[in-house]
Amino acid sequence: MAASNRSRRRNADERRRELCDAAIQVLAEYGSRGLTHAQVDRYARLPDGTTSYYYRTRAALLHGVGKRVAEIDIANLQSVIDAPLDLQSPFARLAELTMMQADGRGLMLNRARHELLLGAVRDPDLAATSQTFVARMNAMAHEAIAHLQPGTDDPALLDAQTTAVTTFIAGVFTRLAGGDRSIHEAEQLSRMLEAVATAVSLQAQRT
Amino acid sequence: MAASNRSRRRNADERRRELCDAAIQVLAEYGSRGLTHAQVDRYARLPDGTTSYYYRTRAALLHGVGKRVAEIDIANLQSVIDAPLDLQSPFARLAELTMMQADGRGLMLNRARHELLLGAVRDPDLAATSQTFVARMNAMAHEAIAHLQPGTDDPALLDAQTTAVTTFIAGVFTRLAGGDRSIHEAEQLSRMLEAVATAVSLQAQRT
Repeated sequence: MAASNRSRRRNADERRRELCDAAIQVLAEYGSRGLTHAQVDRYARLPDGTTSYYYRTRAALLHGVGKRVAEIDIANLQSVIDAPLDLQSPFARLAELTMMQADGRGLMLNRARHELLLGAVRDPDLAATSQTFVARMNAMAHEAIAHLQPGTDDPALLDAQTTAVTTFIAGVFTRLAGGDRSIHEAEQLSRMLEAVATAVSLQAQRT
Repeated sequence: MAASNRSRRRNADERRRELCDAAIQVLAEYGSRGLTHAQVDRYARLPDGTTSYYYRTRAALLHGVGKRVAEIDIANLQSVIDAPLDLQSPFARLAELTMMQADGRGLMLNRARHELLLGAVRDPDLAATSQTFVARMNAMAHEAIAHLQPGTDDPALLDAQTTAVTTFIAGVFTRLAGGDRSIHEAEQLSRMLEAVATAVSLQAQRT
């Protein structure tokens, strides 16, 4: 009985994940205006009413999608923290993950993330969830930046570097979401991110 | 007769500007989903049907708003180019203008700009206009960055610095649009922008 409950629970989680992945596509293609339960059913190739069964309201659906996007972002950032340090090009993996937001599934995720950011302006519940995840992402980014610069252990400097590097990445995401390819290669971005971290460190030494 | 035509034309331009300013507010508050001709009439405190008279379709209205946002952005950037150089803190004015996107009318403009960016994904006409303005903004940003660093005249370096500085500013805009205040002061941002420009220059010297 317990085992069967567990398995039912696992299936429900799996189904929600499928629905949220379909909703990410719908958001990216049609925008917040086009996100409906029926459209998500269609994109997930599931029977009419499935999305409504798992997410009764539009707000619940948006909330689920927000959590799913954060889950993917967190897994990506964790992979930067877990990867062995590349001394030649420490920011390479972070840059590669960022540039994956330029095309295909990454671009969908990127556009959906921006739709959610704007949606949260009008949805206090979504805004609260989003703030929780942003705080967690910032803490992870701090950890990642520390990992990428083994010589640096001043927390204030790491904070300043984290703010600068994540702001830069947010700018790349936004440009890519709009189809702007001013930054188009992971290698170019990797050098820029390293330069930004270095510049913040040099500035801290001067003041 | 000619004078009266000119005056009629001036009035129509003025009316369109009012309508677009109201539409910026509607976009910022209700998102793309909430942008309707009727709502713009209400926000502009003009009789029902005024917005439909000047912008027959939703696409035409979005197009008008996109041009209005670009017009304001271009005027801001021009003011950076025209201002006398502040040698102590060359990026101060650019930083102040950027931080004005955190509150009030600036925040409205910022949110509307993001709504338009996402809207352009689904509207080739809006995307084409937006690309024209982005190209013009990039050329102006190049001129502004050259103005702020009188010693720098290598066009390739200025290009790289422009890309880095404008990407960073795009990231600040996005964070502020979502209510994230990791960067909250013009002075802090001014130092960061200078660090980004310096970083690109140092890196160019090394390679």
